[in-house]
Amino acid sequence: MEQLHACDDRPGPAALEPCIIVIFGASGDLTSRKLIPALFSMYVQGNMPGPFAIVGCGRTPLTGAAFKELLFARLGERLRDSRAWHAFADNLDYFPIAYDRQSFQVLARHLEQIDREKQTRGNRIFDLAVPPDLYPVIAELLGGAGLAAQYQTFPGWSRIIVEKPFGRDLETAVALNATLHEHFAEEQIYRIDHYLAKETVQNTLIFRFANSIFEPLWNRHHIEYVGIVAAEEIGVESRSGYYDNSGVLRDMFQNHMMQLLVLTAMEPPARFETDAIQDEKAKVIRSLRDFSIEQGSRICLGQYGQGEIGGRSVPAYRSEAGVDPRSPTPTFALMELYVDNWRWQDVPFYLISGKRLPRKETRIIIQFREVPHRLFREVLGQNINANRLLIETYPEEAIRLTFQTKNPGASICLRTMTMDFFYHQHYKGAALDAYARVLLDCIAGDHMLFWRQDGIELSWAFLTPVLQECEECPSPERLLHFYPAGSWGPEPARKTMALLFGD
Amino acid sequence: MEQLHACDDRPGPAALEPCIIVIFGASGDLTSRKLIPALFSMYVQGNMPGPFAIVGCGRTPLTGAAFKELLFARLGERLRDSRAWHAFADNLDYFPIAYDRQSFQVLARHLEQIDREKQTRGNRIFDLAVPPDLYPVIAELLGGAGLAAQYQTFPGWSRIIVEKPFGRDLETAVALNATLHEHFAEEQIYRIDHYLAKETVQNTLIFRFANSIFEPLWNRHHIEYVGIVAAEEIGVESRSGYYDNSGVLRDMFQNHMMQLLVLTAMEPPARFETDAIQDEKAKVIRSLRDFSIEQGSRICLGQYGQGEIGGRSVPAYRSEAGVDPRSPTPTFALMELYVDNWRWQDVPFYLISGKRLPRKETRIIIQFREVPHRLFREVLGQNINANRLLIETYPEEAIRLTFQTKNPGASICLRTMTMDFFYHQHYKGAALDAYARVLLDCIAGDHMLFWRQDGIELSWAFLTPVLQECEECPSPERLLHFYPAGSWGPEPARKTMALLFGD
Repeated sequence: MEQLHACDDRPGPAALEPCIIVIFGASGDLTSRKLIPALFSMYVQGNMPGPFAIVGCGRTPLTGAAFKELLFARLGERLRDSRAWHAFADNLDYFPIAYDRQSFQVLARHLEQIDREKQTRGNRIFDLAVPPDLYPVIAELLGGAGLAAQYQTFPGWSRIIVEKPFGRDLETAVALNATLHEHFAEEQIYRIDHYLAKETVQNTLIFRFANSIFEPLWNRHHIEYVGIVAAEEIGVESRSGYYDNSGVLRDMFQNHMMQLLVLTAMEPPARFETDAIQDEKAKVIRSLRDFSIEQGSRICLGQYGQGEIGGRSVPAYRSEAGVDPRSPTPTFALMELYVDNWRWQDVPFYLISGKRLPRKETRIIIQFREVPHRLFREVLGQNINANRLLIETYPEEAIRLTFQTKNPGASICLRTMTMDFFYHQHYKGAALDAYARVLLDCIAGDHMLFWRQDGIELSWAFLTPVLQECEECPSPERLLHFYPAGSWGPEPARKTMALLFGD
Repeated sequence: MEQLHACDDRPGPAALEPCIIVIFGASGDLTSRKLIPALFSMYVQGNMPGPFAIVGCGRTPLTGAAFKELLFARLGERLRDSRAWHAFADNLDYFPIAYDRQSFQVLARHLEQIDREKQTRGNRIFDLAVPPDLYPVIAELLGGAGLAAQYQTFPGWSRIIVEKPFGRDLETAVALNATLHEHFAEEQIYRIDHYLAKETVQNTLIFRFANSIFEPLWNRHHIEYVGIVAAEEIGVESRSGYYDNSGVLRDMFQNHMMQLLVLTAMEPPARFETDAIQDEKAKVIRSLRDFSIEQGSRICLGQYGQGEIGGRSVPAYRSEAGVDPRSPTPTFALMELYVDNWRWQDVPFYLISGKRLPRKETRIIIQFREVPHRLFREVLGQNINANRLLIETYPEEAIRLTFQTKNPGASICLRTMTMDFFYHQHYKGAALDAYARVLLDCIAGDHMLFWRQDGIELSWAFLTPVLQECEECPSPERLLHFYPAGSWGPEPARKTMALLFGD
């Protein structure tokens, strides 16, 4: 049974405003692997505004033709429709840039020229697909060239998209926000968290607040613990330069894991509107119990050693190319957090993420309490499984509710069964990938799925002392536990891992 | 995912005590169509005690061989395995009986003889597959022949199984109980309700009380209304003699519908034991708000007229063979009941049953309230479907939970989706039909699925004034609404019907 109703009245693609999308770092991997395929698939699905233009900017000297050729060559097989590509590529150009004032002045004039030719009305999106040390540089240069201004010199709007990492601690995040705010107002800034753009993650709010039956259960009286897990099978891959300098806490916890926690724990907002939601999100982070390893807060850091995954031998983290052979960087972390408010007092939130675990799995686990009165005790013994709700993003986009039923047949046995809902079941429309979602929302001016300044800073404010405790520890290895690649993490985390993955 | 655990330690078939099952009315339809197939399938599945004997008693003079032949001829195709049948039939015999003292004396000696030959230890089950006017007669005769006594003259136990109808009003039910109790203690009496023996109905208690997440929602704060519906496609068929004298309220409401209501509404018992459960069931019936048509209680009675079902023209109830052409007997009823206790105050329970409706459907509907705060109002408009839980017995044995999710894709739309659990999914054991379940429980001495005296009498005490109001009405037709066979009941019930069947 399926019934569709209650759609928002967001303007359809035809009503999206024309704009130019400027991608900095256009000759890089992210652009060809993610951004352009996302924009192209939006185009094919009819989700791009008309007119639009895409300007790739990069240090590499490339002609527009060479740029297009390079991008087409790297399109996934699924997308390689050359006729559609040519129509799309008519809106695509390359602008070789140096990160200096003069070059940005030229860019400004170039964009004005496109506005005139293509009627893009002075609306610009600047997407920063560049290393993070360039974020403040580009923000400054855009500001200097007048490109951050809205509705003034230019008639249109100006928006800036910033990828993670957004700072590497509280201080750097505050500094980056300050630099951005010198030129851009908060409403012009789109801080991406791709986890937020995943359908099942977005659905978490709908699931919680458009159904009346979950909210009464969604608190300390009925929930035993919450698990938020993002297990990865892959290792550090090609990102070792960035990763070895960051580690799993910066790479996953400060942003994605925190967002999942916040979506799970937040109070219902008064309206389904960006600011009302962001306010509730910020409240959750503010409510986190101070985390101090010294004071007994529970954290387990790990780093993968040599091991085996899917029958294939894989190297230890310290043997990966680009990694310091004595690196103390954690590739696994388990944190036990508490949200000290009326709803969640004393309910543990287990946040777990790690690389080189046996399989990729992303899920939120809501573990309900046991039945209060063991009324079946005499008949069935003590062992009645408690209910569990899984909000799964990977490998399936699904929601699963486990519960007890009577086993059919003569004797009274309980069976633990699952009611499953697959997110794309019966859905015939096109799927929207996370990058497309982000770009579409930015074009539409919708901040719902982005981080607001206070959220980012609160998250860093919470995590920075933890990072300091870990990194300023005189013997960091004391906190770091090794685990073989392909195992379920280091020994001290195993019990919790078994709890969360044992189904 | 499936996990089996927490089984009761009920003795397996090997530990069931040997016994003789005496069926009165053995040459009748119920015996050959239901009882013998149930016993035979129990035998094939290894669910019969060893040793056992079955003695068919009836007025029809039949040899044992002729009886067996008749039964084999009427076995369903699925069961017609002649080798297994012959092994089973070795335990089967026929005893022609007159319903008088002398004949029962002979029967008593005959059973003793079987006890000696087959080692059935004096344990007897008397199953009354006879018209209800014979119930008191047989009980008297059994008592007179000493066959009701337990552990005295005979070493074994004695149990009596009574089919519906159990009386036709409070007075006759009390009288029948009194007669039975002259000879049988309450613990010897097994009053069948086949609805109670259906797996999904049994599962209702497990579902409610072995899961911690439903009980907090199971009350007036979260439930808008409850629907209990047993729609039938068939008409009166061959039962017109009985039916025209009873009507839908006696045939369905006093027993089956009341049991479903009670299972849905009852408080958790302190133990999963017969008396604790029967106590809670009785409490629900006692808590029913007095029903008075005069005082505005809502009831809608209907009788089917000529119509069409599945493209086939079917006659009006009054044109059925054996029905009075001016019969005022209702074949459809909708009652709106209230359970006046702390949990259910002002939550309507819609009980609906009828013949010649468009399709057969048996289900309990738990309709949850709407989300209290329309936080999506501005975005999605007013129309958010509320959650609904369906406990379905027919056409599927299933549990279905409808809920809202985000529709995949660019815009924010809600989809109403269902999580389904099919009761026999992944179950590889043999199914136990309702008749087999009842017989097995009686052999095991388990009263859980039978009516206790107080329940039966309370149910009649509630319904008898309603029947009187309807039947003593000077113009009964004033209360009776006609509906075409194949439609969703009479006009005044349509709105509620649409609510309950509209998914």
